[in-house]
Amino acid sequence: MAKRLSPSDTMFLYGESREQMMHVAGMMPFTPAPDSPPEYLRGLMDELRAGATVHAPWNLKLSTPDLLWNPLQSWVEEGDVDLEYHVRRSALPSPGDERELGILVSRLHGHHVDLHRPPWELHLIEGLERGRFAWYVKVHHALVDGYSAMQALTTGLSHDPEDRERPLFFGIPRRPRAPDAAPSDGDAASGGGIHFPELLAAIRAQYGASKTVVRALMNVIKAARAGSHDLISPLEAPRCVLNARISKSRRFATQSLSVARLRAIARAANGTLNDVVLALSGACLRTYLLEQGALPSAPLVAMLPVAIRAKDELGGGNAVGAILATLATDIDDPAERLARIVASTTRAKQQLQGMSKPAILQYSALLTAPSMLQMIPSTAGHLRPTFNVVISNVPGPERPLYFRGARLEASYPMSIPVHGQALNITCNSYAGMVCFGFTGCRDTVPHLQRLAVYCGEALPELEHAVLHG
Amino acid sequence: MAKRLSPSDTMFLYGESREQMMHVAGMMPFTPAPDSPPEYLRGLMDELRAGATVHAPWNLKLSTPDLLWNPLQSWVEEGDVDLEYHVRRSALPSPGDERELGILVSRLHGHHVDLHRPPWELHLIEGLERGRFAWYVKVHHALVDGYSAMQALTTGLSHDPEDRERPLFFGIPRRPRAPDAAPSDGDAASGGGIHFPELLAAIRAQYGASKTVVRALMNVIKAARAGSHDLISPLEAPRCVLNARISKSRRFATQSLSVARLRAIARAANGTLNDVVLALSGACLRTYLLEQGALPSAPLVAMLPVAIRAKDELGGGNAVGAILATLATDIDDPAERLARIVASTTRAKQQLQGMSKPAILQYSALLTAPSMLQMIPSTAGHLRPTFNVVISNVPGPERPLYFRGARLEASYPMSIPVHGQALNITCNSYAGMVCFGFTGCRDTVPHLQRLAVYCGEALPELEHAVLHG
Repeated sequence: MAKRLSPSDTMFLYGESREQMMHVAGMMPFTPAPDSPPEYLRGLMDELRAGATVHAPWNLKLSTPDLLWNPLQSWVEEGDVDLEYHVRRSALPSPGDERELGILVSRLHGHHVDLHRPPWELHLIEGLERGRFAWYVKVHHALVDGYSAMQALTTGLSHDPEDRERPLFFGIPRRPRAPDAAPSDGDAASGGGIHFPELLAAIRAQYGASKTVVRALMNVIKAARAGSHDLISPLEAPRCVLNARISKSRRFATQSLSVARLRAIARAANGTLNDVVLALSGACLRTYLLEQGALPSAPLVAMLPVAIRAKDELGGGNAVGAILATLATDIDDPAERLARIVASTTRAKQQLQGMSKPAILQYSALLTAPSMLQMIPSTAGHLRPTFNVVISNVPGPERPLYFRGARLEASYPMSIPVHGQALNITCNSYAGMVCFGFTGCRDTVPHLQRLAVYCGEALPELEHAVLHG
Repeated sequence: MAKRLSPSDTMFLYGESREQMMHVAGMMPFTPAPDSPPEYLRGLMDELRAGATVHAPWNLKLSTPDLLWNPLQSWVEEGDVDLEYHVRRSALPSPGDERELGILVSRLHGHHVDLHRPPWELHLIEGLERGRFAWYVKVHHALVDGYSAMQALTTGLSHDPEDRERPLFFGIPRRPRAPDAAPSDGDAASGGGIHFPELLAAIRAQYGASKTVVRALMNVIKAARAGSHDLISPLEAPRCVLNARISKSRRFATQSLSVARLRAIARAANGTLNDVVLALSGACLRTYLLEQGALPSAPLVAMLPVAIRAKDELGGGNAVGAILATLATDIDDPAERLARIVASTTRAKQQLQGMSKPAILQYSALLTAPSMLQMIPSTAGHLRPTFNVVISNVPGPERPLYFRGARLEASYPMSIPVHGQALNITCNSYAGMVCFGFTGCRDTVPHLQRLAVYCGEALPELEHAVLHG
């Protein structure tokens, strides 16, 4: 059985280079069950080696891994998946704190996956403080997108702490995809797992299909200029240190904040949860860039991948779209910053909602197209960026999950920096928390941990300004 | 200060690909001093971060890392070497035994070094059984060859267990190279740090210089055919599973044997220490391949990089040469196998000793040239190999070394598998031991650990046959 890669999946192979690695990952810390023996993870490995069946897509590998650009590239089944390769044990050096965990997963995220095998790895990391452990799960985006990977991972976890039998995610047959899988909370700007590179693939398809790209681009820009200031056009993003070339090393930082606290702010500001995520991102970026003396005078522009049902579709199928939103980093007052963001996303979503699906695709493609050029090393940092940072918000499970009695503490997404986009902010919601993952190039985004710290500090400031201001 | 790369160094950049990684490494386990505090390695990291000066070559990086093939590639100084990047802490999962250490260093050896930085890494690995730790030191062969790296590492160690002040290797200024650095034990087949890829570079230079390569190749083959059976010509290596394409994953296994026991056998067989290394290598390869039903009926041929002073040179300068030797894997009797090997290396060395330096280079180039083609993925495994395995023996320090009171237990070299040469056997001698490092492609050389086990079992068999037979 060979399955040809979609143009979208192929895109991730084109992007793969020594510095740009097109894999996504999750960092998932667990608190073990009180009755877990100390050799719990070691025993798990023995169990795995005893031979689990590996189901699709986790048993699929590329047909011609030495010719990544092969237009006939397809997925073929690996008869005997080497689980000893794919499932690995690691350990933290002392003291096994969050810092050491961050160092290890940053390092793991900076290594390529082997495209001669099914391109995924599960690392079981022991040696965390208080007997805890963590998963680092990595999957190449050509095999499965981050949202689907998160969904699949979740099927290998249980809401029941007493469920000790459930196989790991790769041992569970894939369920056919629900035909009507629109985002549940009606928040158009929630990512639903649509990532920046997927958008690039859509753009590529679009460029192949349309002969009138240049004219359409002019129309979008003209419309943007004629319209409200709240509608961000591709010409407005300032030059910023975040839009430079990247190296192969990564840094990763996390922050988890209460969904309830974010929702309270959103309600008061007449915005969405996602608007508050943008406001917190804007706040930490403002502080971070100010500190470096690198804050552009014009506000930073974020690109938000969106999953939105177009008005001419009755059901089924998500359109992959993008909107640009201001992060209002030129404004010092947190409440005013949030208000500016709410106005910006509201206007952008209204714009999308009035469009047909092909028009959304065309529009999104044009918004983000110039950033494709940035992915070419020689142009990165020389072109003016279309946007400064990609911010995704992926909804996840609302109730706590367990792995054989061990409680999943949080679920932090790790995404894909590319040339010209050295920082990615992705959030997963899980069990009442918004889990922020800041994934950046080690060299282009120094002291990345500070972003996470400043993001946490921005929440009480925003609460004070909006709720008690 | 920019220093152009030599053709030899450039060769290692040409060879670099997703699967072929041109770095060498050492795995060095230590027994800590009895008075070491448990947080010893952590304290060491803090000390390093406090700012050591990094001396050449450890502060050099490529001028154009995005254009590896740039003929003007040069080494340039990195002003501020990020020691937090280059010196890393790792830990073993439980139980921290030799198996877990092997898994970790195999994994580390399968990752590329970052060619945008000074291409070296030092990993301090804690969590070994009985409070022990290990170093994994990796360096790209374009920066420094394995022998020189070993020499440099040694300068950061001390013969005195009470010496607790010595800086690490990168903090010590490089000594000018001794002009007369011929191998000390007169054993022409001891590698002296000349590795297979260096030889390839010499070949390349040779091909550029000579217009009569084809004619010369015919002469060598004719001479070989007219000569004794003990002289191995390039046409005699059988096809073997070891001469296939490689993947990017590595396995590593070690064995350490007593120099005294090997020397006793060598004396009795009228051979060299290196002949005994070959006999043990042949023995373990025979057992390993028999077990897989993959032993060729013709004996395997080993390529031995040699450092030998040519007869027309009075002093200074080593010629990089190669000889081919039989491993006599078709012979069951250990003593007879060793005798065949001694005859083969003796004849090959006699051949070299009668030649001028240019002739040695030409001869070595012709012997090994066909294997260059094997490095191209599409030909690997289709061409008949010139030889089946590269075996190097690098002499090292004879007395025990200490790192701030911690005793270096052994020094295991990790070398470079390439397409067509999926296994490399390199030995370091240290403190009365011959430390074997078996570095192989994880996929092409399955169950590589067995080679190390069979190598250990071969020693008493060989002793019995030669000394008591």
